[in-house]
Amino acid sequence: MVRAMEWLDVPRPMIRLIDQTLLPDSERYVDVTTVDVLVEAIGDLVVRGAPALGGTGALGVALAMIQAGEESWDAARLDTEIDRIRDARPTAVNLAWGVNQVRGAMPRGTAEVLRLALQVVADDEAANRRLSRRGADWVLAHVAKEKVRVVTHCNTGALATCGWGTAYGIIHELHERGRLGLVYADETRPLLQGARLTSWELLHDGIEHVVQADSAAASTILRGLVDVAIIGADRIAANGDTANKVGSVGLALACQRAGIPFIVAAPSSTVDLAIARGEDIVIEERYEDEVLGFAGLRTAPAGVRGFNPAFDVTPHDLISAVITERGIAEPATQAHPDLLAIVAG
Amino acid sequence: MVRAMEWLDVPRPMIRLIDQTLLPDSERYVDVTTVDVLVEAIGDLVVRGAPALGGTGALGVALAMIQAGEESWDAARLDTEIDRIRDARPTAVNLAWGVNQVRGAMPRGTAEVLRLALQVVADDEAANRRLSRRGADWVLAHVAKEKVRVVTHCNTGALATCGWGTAYGIIHELHERGRLGLVYADETRPLLQGARLTSWELLHDGIEHVVQADSAAASTILRGLVDVAIIGADRIAANGDTANKVGSVGLALACQRAGIPFIVAAPSSTVDLAIARGEDIVIEERYEDEVLGFAGLRTAPAGVRGFNPAFDVTPHDLISAVITERGIAEPATQAHPDLLAIVAG
Repeated sequence: MVRAMEWLDVPRPMIRLIDQTLLPDSERYVDVTTVDVLVEAIGDLVVRGAPALGGTGALGVALAMIQAGEESWDAARLDTEIDRIRDARPTAVNLAWGVNQVRGAMPRGTAEVLRLALQVVADDEAANRRLSRRGADWVLAHVAKEKVRVVTHCNTGALATCGWGTAYGIIHELHERGRLGLVYADETRPLLQGARLTSWELLHDGIEHVVQADSAAASTILRGLVDVAIIGADRIAANGDTANKVGSVGLALACQRAGIPFIVAAPSSTVDLAIARGEDIVIEERYEDEVLGFAGLRTAPAGVRGFNPAFDVTPHDLISAVITERGIAEPATQAHPDLLAIVAG
Repeated sequence: MVRAMEWLDVPRPMIRLIDQTLLPDSERYVDVTTVDVLVEAIGDLVVRGAPALGGTGALGVALAMIQAGEESWDAARLDTEIDRIRDARPTAVNLAWGVNQVRGAMPRGTAEVLRLALQVVADDEAANRRLSRRGADWVLAHVAKEKVRVVTHCNTGALATCGWGTAYGIIHELHERGRLGLVYADETRPLLQGARLTSWELLHDGIEHVVQADSAAASTILRGLVDVAIIGADRIAANGDTANKVGSVGLALACQRAGIPFIVAAPSSTVDLAIARGEDIVIEERYEDEVLGFAGLRTAPAGVRGFNPAFDVTPHDLISAVITERGIAEPATQAHPDLLAIVAG
């Protein structure tokens, strides 16, 4: 299995990231040894995907402590630098969560912080495998088909996590159980994580699939070509409203109309009880150029402006199930989905 | 105003098409003097847009008659060649409609067919100007805003028609009345007619707008950033179900949820009373490569398959109004929208 991020001790301590902006054309790695490079890599989406950002954030704290030692930063400077990592992207709760998981251990030294960060990474993969089994069980209990046809949006596989995947993990689990039909992978404009990354992982895992334009997803669903939509999440509010890659809510609306389940798969760390509802989630707006061109090729006329929200919010009443490693909530049918219980475990 | 197609008599009879596959980077023209070149140009989307295909189809009959004379085709061959033009694309009713508008005049000679074809072109522009005034009236009667913010999908302007535009024409009319707010133009994957063509026309007409990913449209609507969605149509069934560029139904679902109008603008020739309902409309599937990359740049891994339906069908209950030059139907609220009356005039 490919790894989005890996900690290396030799030749020197570093976070090795596979450069996801270059996939599938080339497999190149970025060896991160400074906070500056890490913050830039996160901003440029060299590493992306909410759970992967969690692991990267945790490892980043260890990296910052090592750099602080080498460059004799005082405590205030180190704090500022760790804040920069935490705030490198605003929408995914996991990045700040990963940083905060290990930050409290800083007085116990770098080795302890690193040990905890590596545990965050290992725990994420274990959580993903667990939620994938739960998710596959849920899907098979709710879809009366021998082979379940799935539509998914963006990338939620090994590349988006610390291992195995979330929504992708459920798809992979269905495949391993021999119960998966054709997968429709939305290409996921503007950065094409579906066409470039999900498709690359599906190909690698031998899963039959087609890539479609994002705008085709609604009609694919309405025409009865899929049985369930499975997506990931960047932040889940206390009421179940879910922020995920822009385009997710369009799938949810189509699923509601078609009467098929729309499910969100994410580690429990994605639930943010501090956010009451979707309207309170900050939606990252990214560079205009991403939507004014395609893979570096400018497509819109010069002088035109772009509008590029990276995420959208799916209201909880459209979400059939939130699948986590700790439990499942069903916001569309439960008056008060018990996300608190999920977070508490 | 730019012209998608123009008939020239000198240096020899031909249809001059602006090559829409090359816009906005370069303004190049294709001079069509044979049926082969015309069929290829239609298939490759050098000329596209349902009403523009109507005009092109009508002019194509005249062109075929001239070629028949030059190459001594018999009547059967001429008939076959005209059928090839009529069937060059399956979803837009207008192409076949345009051919059929003039075909019956063939016994009266080439000059008469050409005169009628030029009338089809002139009538389309006149119809568009009329439906745009009606459409702007309808919008202003239903949206209580000084400045109306609009989202649109694909290209429905001068380039998509024989002049002025349909959905775009209503936007243009609102602009001329000083009642237009910001326009959100969906980029329209896979061929980016929105980013390349609509944006180019909006820029040319001095209309403030932004380009967004198609997948952003639903959340733009749900966030309250627009007041109305206005799209064109390739074929409207007798019950009001409407085939249009893939992605249209996603806007319709979001408009229903947001409680804002979703309107379809098209010349009455787009209504096909021979088709009872949307399920009976043939949906063109185009080349896989279109969705696996852009402009020859491959983005998906080698070996991956694409699914590329070019159109989708919006059910009539999601359509607030069908605006034509002859009248307006309101399928979402009328039990039996009287499209027959519209076609009859």
